[in-house]
Amino acid sequence: MEIKIAKHAGFCFGVRRAVDMAEKALESGQRVYCLGSLIHNQQVIEKLEKEGLVMVKDQTKIPAGSVFLVRSHGIDPIIVAGVVAQGGKILDATCPFVRRAQLVAKKFHEEDYDVIICGDPAHAEVIGINAWAENSAKIIHDANEVKNLKFKGTVGVLSQTTQKKELLDSVVAELLKKTKHLVIENTICLDSSTKQGEVSALAKEVELMIVIGGKNSSNTGKLVQLSEAQKTSTYHIEIAEELKPEWFKNIKIVGIAAGASTAQFLIDDVVDKIKSLC
Amino acid sequence: MEIKIAKHAGFCFGVRRAVDMAEKALESGQRVYCLGSLIHNQQVIEKLEKEGLVMVKDQTKIPAGSVFLVRSHGIDPIIVAGVVAQGGKILDATCPFVRRAQLVAKKFHEEDYDVIICGDPAHAEVIGINAWAENSAKIIHDANEVKNLKFKGTVGVLSQTTQKKELLDSVVAELLKKTKHLVIENTICLDSSTKQGEVSALAKEVELMIVIGGKNSSNTGKLVQLSEAQKTSTYHIEIAEELKPEWFKNIKIVGIAAGASTAQFLIDDVVDKIKSLC
Repeated sequence: MEIKIAKHAGFCFGVRRAVDMAEKALESGQRVYCLGSLIHNQQVIEKLEKEGLVMVKDQTKIPAGSVFLVRSHGIDPIIVAGVVAQGGKILDATCPFVRRAQLVAKKFHEEDYDVIICGDPAHAEVIGINAWAENSAKIIHDANEVKNLKFKGTVGVLSQTTQKKELLDSVVAELLKKTKHLVIENTICLDSSTKQGEVSALAKEVELMIVIGGKNSSNTGKLVQLSEAQKTSTYHIEIAEELKPEWFKNIKIVGIAAGASTAQFLIDDVVDKIKSLC
Repeated sequence: MEIKIAKHAGFCFGVRRAVDMAEKALESGQRVYCLGSLIHNQQVIEKLEKEGLVMVKDQTKIPAGSVFLVRSHGIDPIIVAGVVAQGGKILDATCPFVRRAQLVAKKFHEEDYDVIICGDPAHAEVIGINAWAENSAKIIHDANEVKNLKFKGTVGVLSQTTQKKELLDSVVAELLKKTKHLVIENTICLDSSTKQGEVSALAKEVELMIVIGGKNSSNTGKLVQLSEAQKTSTYHIEIAEELKPEWFKNIKIVGIAAGASTAQFLIDDVVDKIKSLC
């Protein structure tokens, strides 16, 4: 059986940077606090937790004076200010592409635009971006949601960095029916665009696609959708142990893609396991 | 035979205003100069010429110190400045919707955006708008033309006031593939949108459509296209004399639409002639 791996499978620049920052901070043996998941990959997180990373769900759980690592998805600047006010030391692992989206949201809000974020309202990155617009943005996950909106003037549109471009395109098309003044900043990150293009092409070439990444990972979920859109059998797994021998019956060529928060060791494990199944 | 007339057939606000300004200026018996066609309707122009309007094709033909009426489509501000420098008196009949498009083009150019005008590069209004952007704009008449363009930064998009919104929509969709920074001002005028919606609806209800307006009128041309898009037999005429009895054979219901520069007397003539044919 032939195995084809997407060229840009695995860690993106922002995740690589966040994990490097965490590992460096943990080297000295100090505890490092993080609010929410540093990256959306359970296996990588478990490894970092063993080295001293403490993940909390609520900012009140961060002891005064701690080292506080801002997750790659970014967070509300008011939370950061609160940690600083309590003597905390900030290490900011916000992905630079997410930072750009935050600054776009802030600028749109300051210009008094109606702010639209194309994205998942429950996703940490989107909640963080909206915080930079003082939570004034309307978050759109389906272009049909635009139909009921009313606008006071210029509409500013941006996107969660890991969204599919199709969502931005369809939201813009709907907005053009509703407003005469539209400013668009396409804040989808280069890594997401590249991975999305690769997975669509790869799914066409193979009989079976394995997409590796956190079940809670937005960008991995988009890769799964795009692979399925090619009508190729697709399985979304986090670790090699989830692979089932029957998936590979009569399969001559399998494709592998992996989300931006999937470490190389997880991809290697999957490749080894598939080889052992043949 | 039933005759249905589109509710907003005929003169739009901008054309009405331009004709009123011309008539008022001509009342005193003075000559009034205009560069190019004041409005795109030959019959109305002929009437005004009898009253003393002088249409010239070249600004060097405007005598120093004349009264100069700026056409409804607007013109290059440098030409206006030249007339003023020679002691001319300016009457500005630029449609206020066209003025808005000119100011948008000027602002985009001052912001150092790549300026895109959706429109016909040979149309007087578009040539005038581009002049307000110091002729820096790229004029796009088909979304495919976007594919070969390169941009240096933010792209600012506006439209000829009488274009179909479909052109703007398709150009924006192509631009989203090429640039991450897009500012859109939909400068299609309300009258064009209204007339376009009406003609599409009316063409569905009738067996035959008569569209009245200048053969050189952009907005009338769009109405003809939209009527034909409904697969309804459609004739584009300027005057009642062009109607042919055979068009109405076995027709029980006919629709009439008229462009923004079509005077009411021309519509009345057509209705009378159709009634006489039955």
